[in-house]
Amino acid sequence: MENIAEEVLKGNRLALSRAITAIENEHENATEIMKTLYPHTGHAYVLGVTGPPGAGKSTLTDKLAKEYRQQGKTVGIIAIDPSSPFSGGAILGDRIRMNGLTLDEGVFIRSMGTRGSLGGLSHKTADAVKAMDAFGMDVILVETVGVGQSEVDIVRAADTTMVVLIPGMGDDIQAIKAGILEIGDIFTINKADHDGADKLATELNMMLDLDGVEKDWRPPILKAIASQNIGIAEVVATFQKHYDYIRSTGELTARRTERTKNEMLDLLDGRIGSYVRSKIVDNGKLDAYVEDIKARKTDPYTVVEGIMQDMLK
Amino acid sequence: MENIAEEVLKGNRLALSRAITAIENEHENATEIMKTLYPHTGHAYVLGVTGPPGAGKSTLTDKLAKEYRQQGKTVGIIAIDPSSPFSGGAILGDRIRMNGLTLDEGVFIRSMGTRGSLGGLSHKTADAVKAMDAFGMDVILVETVGVGQSEVDIVRAADTTMVVLIPGMGDDIQAIKAGILEIGDIFTINKADHDGADKLATELNMMLDLDGVEKDWRPPILKAIASQNIGIAEVVATFQKHYDYIRSTGELTARRTERTKNEMLDLLDGRIGSYVRSKIVDNGKLDAYVEDIKARKTDPYTVVEGIMQDMLK
Repeated sequence: MENIAEEVLKGNRLALSRAITAIENEHENATEIMKTLYPHTGHAYVLGVTGPPGAGKSTLTDKLAKEYRQQGKTVGIIAIDPSSPFSGGAILGDRIRMNGLTLDEGVFIRSMGTRGSLGGLSHKTADAVKAMDAFGMDVILVETVGVGQSEVDIVRAADTTMVVLIPGMGDDIQAIKAGILEIGDIFTINKADHDGADKLATELNMMLDLDGVEKDWRPPILKAIASQNIGIAEVVATFQKHYDYIRSTGELTARRTERTKNEMLDLLDGRIGSYVRSKIVDNGKLDAYVEDIKARKTDPYTVVEGIMQDMLK
Repeated sequence: MENIAEEVLKGNRLALSRAITAIENEHENATEIMKTLYPHTGHAYVLGVTGPPGAGKSTLTDKLAKEYRQQGKTVGIIAIDPSSPFSGGAILGDRIRMNGLTLDEGVFIRSMGTRGSLGGLSHKTADAVKAMDAFGMDVILVETVGVGQSEVDIVRAADTTMVVLIPGMGDDIQAIKAGILEIGDIFTINKADHDGADKLATELNMMLDLDGVEKDWRPPILKAIASQNIGIAEVVATFQKHYDYIRSTGELTARRTERTKNEMLDLLDGRIGSYVRSKIVDNGKLDAYVEDIKARKTDPYTVVEGIMQDMLK
C-alpha cells in the first residue's frame, strides 16, 4: 500500500487498520499519516464509555454500535486494554466481541493496549480516534475500564462521557461519588434486573442533587440490561440529547478546544521526551551521568539542570 | 524553619514532614532540599508492597513495621493513594492506621495521592523515599494498590517487591498471572485462614514452575494472617533473605542503577515538560496554536515540530 493515509480517506479498511498499527507502534510513518488525515477530522461524535471492571461495558458498547447501525450511522469502537497485571484478566475476558459486528462493513473495532506508558496511550488513542474520524465514522465509541486517572482522562476527552455502573456496589458508592459525579454526562445502570438497581439509582440521584453545583445539564440516570438489548435505544436517544445540548450551548466547541489543547501538549511532551532521551542515550552520556549520581559525586537535580541548559535555547 | 534539608539530616520529624510536603506540592524549594539530601541517601532498604484492593496491604505493612521496630530498625512508610474515582473508596478505608505506630518516634508514615499525573506521582514518591532515606530510616515500605501500570512501576523501583494476594480470587488468578509473576520477588497470601488459601498457593506455585525461566531466586510463597500478627516474622525473614541474595549477586547494585536511571529520565521529562509549557502558555501562543489547529489551517504534528525547532538547540 503506497499511501496509507490517502487510502484511509478513500475508505479502505485495511489502510485504516495499518494506520492505527503505525500509531500504536510509533512507526516513523505515523506522523506523516496523521498530517494527511488531520484536515479531514472533526466530524465524528466521540463517546466515552467508562466504569469499573465487570460493569458490562463491552456488551453495552456493542449493543450501542448495533443501534447506531440501525439508524444508518457508521461506528468506530476503540477498546482500551490497560494491561494492568491485576485487572488484566477481567478485561481480556471482555474482549470477546460479538461476531455480528465484526462482519459489518459499517463498523470498525480496534483494541489498544498500554504496553508502554499510559501517557503514550492517551496520545495514541487520540490519534486512533482521528484516524477513524477521517475514515468517515459518524460515531466513535471509546471504551475503557476506569481504574486509573490516566484512563479516566482518555474518556474525558470525549464529546460525551457515559459512566456504566452495576448494582451490588453497596456502600462503595458513597466513597466513589466524588470522582464519578464530575466524569459522567450520562449514568447507565447496567444489569438493572439485578438486586439493588433501584437503590443504586436513588443513591446516585441523591448525590447528583447534593452536588450543589447549578447545572443546565443534569446527568440522567438510565437503566439497561445490555445482554438482553433492553434500554439501548434510550441510551442512544440520551446521547443525542446531550449532543444537541452541548452543541446549542457552545460547550461542544469548548470541549473540543480543550481536547485539542491537551492533545497538542501531550504530543509535545512525548516528542521532546523522545528527542532528549535519544540525545543523551545515544552518545553514552546517560550511563556516565548515572554512575556519577550513584557515586554521589552529583545529584539527579543538578544533572537534569545541566542537560536542560545544554539542549534548550 | 530556616533550612529544612539540614533539619531533616539532624533527624527533625517536622522538617521531614515539610520536606515531603514541598515535594508533593512541587514547591520551589523542593529541588534545593533534594540536592542537599541526595548525598545522604542510599542506605535504606526499600520494600515495595503491592496487590489488588482489599488484600490487606495496609494491615500487613503496619505489622511489618512493628516487626522491624522490634528488631531495632527505624521504618518509613509511604502509602500511595491513587485517587481513582472507582477504587478511591476502598483505598481511603485502608488508610485507617494503627495508633501504636504513629506514636513511635522510630516510624514515619506518609500518604501520597496522585492528584495530578501518575508520572508525577512516581517521581514524587521517589523523592519522598530519598527524604526518608536521608532522614535515616533503615527500612522504607512503599505500599500501593496494583491497579495500573504506573503504580506498579512505583513498587518495581523498590529493592524488593512483595505481591500480596488473598484467597477467593478464583479463576482470575490464571488471567492475572502474566503481570504478577514478573513483579513479585516474594508472594504473600494474606487472610490465609480463608477458604482457598491452599488452592491459591498451589496455583501460584504451578505458575512459577511453568514460568520456564531459570532463576536463582525462586519467589517464595508465604502465608499470613496480618490482622492476627501470624506469619509476619517469616515475611521479614524472607525480605532479609532476598536482600542478602540480591546483595551477594550484585543484583541490588543493578536494580539501584536502573532505578537511578529511570528516576533521572523521569525528572528530566517533568522538568522539560514544565519549561516548554510555561514558554508557550505564558505568551499566549498556545491559544493561537489551538485556534489554527481547530480551523484546520495546520495540524498538531506540524505545530509541535515548529515549537521543537524554536526551543531546542
